[in-house]
Amino acid sequence: MRPKRLIIIGGVAAGASCATRTRRLDEQREILVFERGPYVSFASCGLPYHLSGVIAEEDDLLLVGPEDFKDRYNVDVHTGHEVLEIDREGKRVRVRDLSTDACRWEGYDDLVITTGAKAFMPPIPGLDSPGVFQLRTVPQARAIRNWIDKQQARTAVVIGAGFIGLEAAENLVKRGLSVQVVEAQDQVLPPLDSSIAERVGQHLEEKGVGLHLGVSVEAIESEEGGALTVCLQDGSRLVADLVLAAIGVRPRSELAGEAGLELAPGGAVVVDDQMRTNDPHIFAAGDVVQTACAITGRPTYLPLAGPANRQGRLVGDALLGRGHRFRGVQGTVICGLFDLTVAATGLSRRTLAAQSEIPWSTLWIHPKDHVGYYPGAHPITLQVTYDTRDGRVLGAQAVGEAGVARRIDVLAMAIQLGGTLSDLEQAELCYAPQFGAAKDAVNMVGMVGANQFRGELPSRPWSEAIGDEGPMIDVREPAEFEAGHVQGALNLPLSQLRGRLNELPTARPLLVYCQSGKRSYDAVRFLNQVGIEAQSVLGGLMSRPRGEFWGRSSDTEF
Amino acid sequence: MRPKRLIIIGGVAAGASCATRTRRLDEQREILVFERGPYVSFASCGLPYHLSGVIAEEDDLLLVGPEDFKDRYNVDVHTGHEVLEIDREGKRVRVRDLSTDACRWEGYDDLVITTGAKAFMPPIPGLDSPGVFQLRTVPQARAIRNWIDKQQARTAVVIGAGFIGLEAAENLVKRGLSVQVVEAQDQVLPPLDSSIAERVGQHLEEKGVGLHLGVSVEAIESEEGGALTVCLQDGSRLVADLVLAAIGVRPRSELAGEAGLELAPGGAVVVDDQMRTNDPHIFAAGDVVQTACAITGRPTYLPLAGPANRQGRLVGDALLGRGHRFRGVQGTVICGLFDLTVAATGLSRRTLAAQSEIPWSTLWIHPKDHVGYYPGAHPITLQVTYDTRDGRVLGAQAVGEAGVARRIDVLAMAIQLGGTLSDLEQAELCYAPQFGAAKDAVNMVGMVGANQFRGELPSRPWSEAIGDEGPMIDVREPAEFEAGHVQGALNLPLSQLRGRLNELPTARPLLVYCQSGKRSYDAVRFLNQVGIEAQSVLGGLMSRPRGEFWGRSSDTEF
Repeated sequence: MRPKRLIIIGGVAAGASCATRTRRLDEQREILVFERGPYVSFASCGLPYHLSGVIAEEDDLLLVGPEDFKDRYNVDVHTGHEVLEIDREGKRVRVRDLSTDACRWEGYDDLVITTGAKAFMPPIPGLDSPGVFQLRTVPQARAIRNWIDKQQARTAVVIGAGFIGLEAAENLVKRGLSVQVVEAQDQVLPPLDSSIAERVGQHLEEKGVGLHLGVSVEAIESEEGGALTVCLQDGSRLVADLVLAAIGVRPRSELAGEAGLELAPGGAVVVDDQMRTNDPHIFAAGDVVQTACAITGRPTYLPLAGPANRQGRLVGDALLGRGHRFRGVQGTVICGLFDLTVAATGLSRRTLAAQSEIPWSTLWIHPKDHVGYYPGAHPITLQVTYDTRDGRVLGAQAVGEAGVARRIDVLAMAIQLGGTLSDLEQAELCYAPQFGAAKDAVNMVGMVGANQFRGELPSRPWSEAIGDEGPMIDVREPAEFEAGHVQGALNLPLSQLRGRLNELPTARPLLVYCQSGKRSYDAVRFLNQVGIEAQSVLGGLMSRPRGEFWGRSSDTEF
Repeated sequence: MRPKRLIIIGGVAAGASCATRTRRLDEQREILVFERGPYVSFASCGLPYHLSGVIAEEDDLLLVGPEDFKDRYNVDVHTGHEVLEIDREGKRVRVRDLSTDACRWEGYDDLVITTGAKAFMPPIPGLDSPGVFQLRTVPQARAIRNWIDKQQARTAVVIGAGFIGLEAAENLVKRGLSVQVVEAQDQVLPPLDSSIAERVGQHLEEKGVGLHLGVSVEAIESEEGGALTVCLQDGSRLVADLVLAAIGVRPRSELAGEAGLELAPGGAVVVDDQMRTNDPHIFAAGDVVQTACAITGRPTYLPLAGPANRQGRLVGDALLGRGHRFRGVQGTVICGLFDLTVAATGLSRRTLAAQSEIPWSTLWIHPKDHVGYYPGAHPITLQVTYDTRDGRVLGAQAVGEAGVARRIDVLAMAIQLGGTLSDLEQAELCYAPQFGAAKDAVNMVGMVGANQFRGELPSRPWSEAIGDEGPMIDVREPAEFEAGHVQGALNLPLSQLRGRLNELPTARPLLVYCQSGKRSYDAVRFLNQVGIEAQSVLGGLMSRPRGEFWGRSSDTEF
């Protein structure tokens, strides 16, 4: 009896994981990988860092070669081979060897489609000009580096302020270029909420990156000598030696679609929770598939490296008849940009606002990554959403200079396991002075959140405080107040509040704020207990929208 | 009607948290804190770092003063006041003002005992000599600094290699002293398991700290001019200008005991899960109480800052009639020592071996803190214990140069919420090249552990491989083998294994090892499937006990 034959189309993240997992579980099966590009298993997430030379050598990006797959796993990898057609009836694929253009049919018992995603290229005139690049493959990265050298490029425009776009922008700056970023949305990092993204945008500007938000690109014009002009909808014209299009990705699902496999409206391949398509002998995994949101169960398209690898591995399990199920995608992301780290997991405020099943609320806090008395402490801005019925944590976003990945990872694990604010309150996490606090940032999320959840902290977010005509009380110390405060606010420091109640305005509710939300919490607890209606403005001045509502114009850069 | 009166004995971690929490919940109550020492709410965990000057100013260690408690929280803090006696019948305490020696009675409605712990001082002759110090209070830290200056101290002996002892040793080295550490147990950091602690000991020695393990101190002799000689049981005599006794702590429960409150055998105050003693009007919290292990429910004494703060806060809740319960202590600890971080949570192998209810097993892995292709990646040695019935994670310990706190925190959260190896497999954590890997260290714990758990990875730990006469196969590449290997091992690289099966010895099972355990896993999967009985040695050479069983003596420093 001939051994079963597995063919995998695409050999990067999901495909490579599927090949090795299947081999570990089954020594007998014949395993073939066809990869269109010149490399398998390359480090696509490392590409931006190769632009600057932080990752110096191209070879560093090539993780495992075809020889390793053969020697260690007895997997036959064919790079430079494009699969042109799937014959489901005949259980075979037509493959073209790109070096000879020769085509042949290869039969399979099981087929796995891990063709990934491709750059979204909207119909902008000039987007195909020389000097306009994408950054999804090693050859593309090489082309950008060569172009920079050849043209002695000094300026770049990045179209798209998503993760790849901003990582590329950072690395082009590190390479010595002057960089402008254009984004059609009105914030950087559109998957994140504005209160977090705004902090990132500010930091990028501090580092010299020009931001053009809420404006589209109309055309790209080529000049003599290779320079380019990026024309924006608002009439501005950005001249650059190099343009990088990082506008987003789309599933590379043409092959699957032509074979009659079910596709979701956006084009992603529809699979069940074992990554099986509507053909029982064809699986799909990675950036080409639609998955479910791990929290709401809703179908979603969220191409991420971690889930891609786990999905590929899971196909190996499914091939061997195992019952493992993919739990869906939680949306955990992280990005380092200059001195800042920004990360998120779970449902954003925007996603929650767009659904109707879950009643939810938000908290903002600004704990330090470690205790302030040990040198080098930095605040982390943390935004957490929770289910107002049971306190279950739904999502978390954070930005800061240190300790961000750690807190988002802990919150990601809590969300995965259905943890509540009360669980965060009680979490027992690492503490020594250089590593955290006896009440860690995650505990603070739980404590503040549980106070809100239990109704012990009447509060409102800045978005609902701005424009309210009610009296605003600043409970910081006078020196802090003098350095800048909300226009029209009355300064009554927490430390003097008990003795100066008679100075409070008579209108109610009082809107109380401080720097981070901690003193306003203490003040509101006190005021409420002595019968004065008051609400704490969530997250304090550190969470307020930038530039708005601020007393002294010289102090808008808080 | 007069307001209720709360008296808190001790104003550091648990006491201070209790005072502020109670005030936030109840503006009316009278709250008094009596603290024997000169300071409340000081940063005891920061004391070692003040020895070196990393934390430069003594004032930095004093977090909140009595004035702040009064101004912000209307809490009356009396420092320099010792409570001498509790009259439970009369619901009052007798207090001595240490500045005048005047005594008075103060009545209470509720009493909270947060008297903390005191240094354990065994009956070693000379332990009370000038130049022998403890490090539990700000004045003690000041005395050590003054002594170093006055004596121009160049050498120190630290007795006790627990967390405080080693942190003190590191900071004395940073201060310029030559430091020896004496520990009666045969490893540093006795709460940790030897495979992790050994790595820490090695690092300390590399940094010039002398270790004397498995040996007790018999006496301390004072020399002319202030020098001291520490006499060890093995006959060695260590001369030093300074001795620091960090031998452990005991609950400071005399007051509670004399009042007839129930004490556990070790002296800790027995409380329920709302921190109530056997007197319904008396609570206790922090380092003075016995708690339960959060995993097994067994009574335990584990003084830690995080739980102390949360317990103090919980007393405030209980006073207001809230139903919150303390879930027990999980034992999360962390320690930074020179370039290394070591951390742990949950049950150690030693603790598991001492109990009989839970069947358990262990895994060891050595993933990098972030992908190897991005500069600056360091391995993390991770040891994880799990319940062999359901794969529930029981404990985790880790040591490495980066990313340790993050992984232990994630595992701590998983343990708290009853997570299994399968949950870790599926965890969706932060990944970008500088922050992790598409299969994060925590995913790797889950994947390797689940393989073991499902019986797909026949394996044994080094402790059971050492001394076995069976054939040992080294599946690393020849160059790695040549640089050092286990005595008598046969080198058959994974990359050549399929073609060289005929060279394998005939005895069974084969014991297969590699560097980290990954290639031996691949090899064992292959060998088992072709009918050859083989077992992977867990964690590879990076987990092997130091110095043992190693082929070439010049290579023992792996």
